[in-house]
Amino acid sequence: MTFHESLDAAVRRNQSWLCVGLDPDPNRMPDHLPTDAEGVYAFCAAIMDATADLVCAFKPNVAFFEALGAAGWSTLERLVRLRPGPPIILDAKRSDIGATAEAYARAVFTTLGADAVTLNPYLGGDALEPFLRHADRGCFILCKTSNPGSRDLQDARLADGRPLYLAVAEMARDCWNTRGNAGLVVGATHPAALAEIRRACPDMLILAPGVGAQGGDLEATVRAAAAGAEPQVIVNVSRAVLYAERGVNFAAAARTAARQWRDAINAALRAA
Amino acid sequence: MTFHESLDAAVRRNQSWLCVGLDPDPNRMPDHLPTDAEGVYAFCAAIMDATADLVCAFKPNVAFFEALGAAGWSTLERLVRLRPGPPIILDAKRSDIGATAEAYARAVFTTLGADAVTLNPYLGGDALEPFLRHADRGCFILCKTSNPGSRDLQDARLADGRPLYLAVAEMARDCWNTRGNAGLVVGATHPAALAEIRRACPDMLILAPGVGAQGGDLEATVRAAAAGAEPQVIVNVSRAVLYAERGVNFAAAARTAARQWRDAINAALRAA
Repeated sequence: MTFHESLDAAVRRNQSWLCVGLDPDPNRMPDHLPTDAEGVYAFCAAIMDATADLVCAFKPNVAFFEALGAAGWSTLERLVRLRPGPPIILDAKRSDIGATAEAYARAVFTTLGADAVTLNPYLGGDALEPFLRHADRGCFILCKTSNPGSRDLQDARLADGRPLYLAVAEMARDCWNTRGNAGLVVGATHPAALAEIRRACPDMLILAPGVGAQGGDLEATVRAAAAGAEPQVIVNVSRAVLYAERGVNFAAAARTAARQWRDAINAALRAA
Repeated sequence: MTFHESLDAAVRRNQSWLCVGLDPDPNRMPDHLPTDAEGVYAFCAAIMDATADLVCAFKPNVAFFEALGAAGWSTLERLVRLRPGPPIILDAKRSDIGATAEAYARAVFTTLGADAVTLNPYLGGDALEPFLRHADRGCFILCKTSNPGSRDLQDARLADGRPLYLAVAEMARDCWNTRGNAGLVVGATHPAALAEIRRACPDMLILAPGVGAQGGDLEATVRAAAAGAEPQVIVNVSRAVLYAERGVNFAAAARTAARQWRDAINAALRAA
């Protein structure tokens, strides 16, 4: 199954555009779990098991696994291999040149076996191509990120009047999405930019992190990003689901939180 | 020792501004070595041992280790722990937001113990800050990369007439280098951009990849980037040293190649 088929199947089966981000911070995990790689595995596997019928995707962020060294990388491999149903979008924000980008693409798609990845566009199209070439996998290109500092480069005004993030969206649409497997990452903290990007790219899949702990406005996000009958906007929530409760019932609490987020997204989609 | 002290010591001891990039491609390693993580370790350790008195730094590229999965990550940890003398610049091109950037900084500086790292500026200053905060470590921010696709975003002309890469250089100088530990990555394939960036940032350390296999012009690079008595330009060569010979004498051949590159850089510095 391609990433898009696997995503579509999860969307239909679970009636969900919610993606749960797996950002396991040992200091915030339940106290009864060890703070090492085994504890991180137990934590993430329990969250995945408890929410697999409520989400359209899972998004593990590589940073939290790399912080644990080689053992963390093994944990990530084991989690991806669980294949809980919804596709795995590896939040890696990678990009590099030539043979190096090929090595990263191999690491992400072959060694780890992720269904999709997030990519950083600063190095240009030839740095994205080794990932995009895997036509059965998804590639989400950072466009306008959810953090305040996104203004430093992404809002820079070009000579033709466009902000840089819009130029990136249009390059993605016109040059990089030749196989239909490119999407965009646009933070839910910037609904006006999201609307502008959606107008420029009416058909592209958008991954929108930033609701929940980061304070993005869910209704405004969905209104700005939904693209008609097929919303094509994946709403990511990480901490508000993962850390819904710190006790032994953390997985049940995460399930309750995920169900509430899924339903809230669906309500916002109906109202959009 | 801080990164800068360790770099200075290696520059003086070895009379060298050459950095050897460790991009171990199992398909290009000597035939007598296994193509797995153990072979990669043996290959890189031999290269480091053969050239440690000829270089100012080593630059392992994470991609080639991640492509080998958890075993590759262990290999990288072991190589960094060898502490051969010259500092280790981890070519990771990372950046992410908030707690995630902190996790990456922990992975790079604490778990792996690298002396310096390369970073991608697209997400802005707050994504770089968790790395820069480690004042004893070096942070090389991608400015103008050596690949052809660097024109896509980095050459974009801003409303004020500057190309984006120059705006990045000036932000690095004015906003991000508050602790003196930020440098810039500028490809040796763009000597004119390099000269422009050096004029804007007369004191910043520049890491210049792209001579050797990528065809950058060494003399033009050194002329453009050298900053007076203290050149402050690290010239990286990867494949032209690593794969100087494929037989059992690969390490001796790498040593000969490294010596030639070091001497050529020094000759170019004297002529600059």
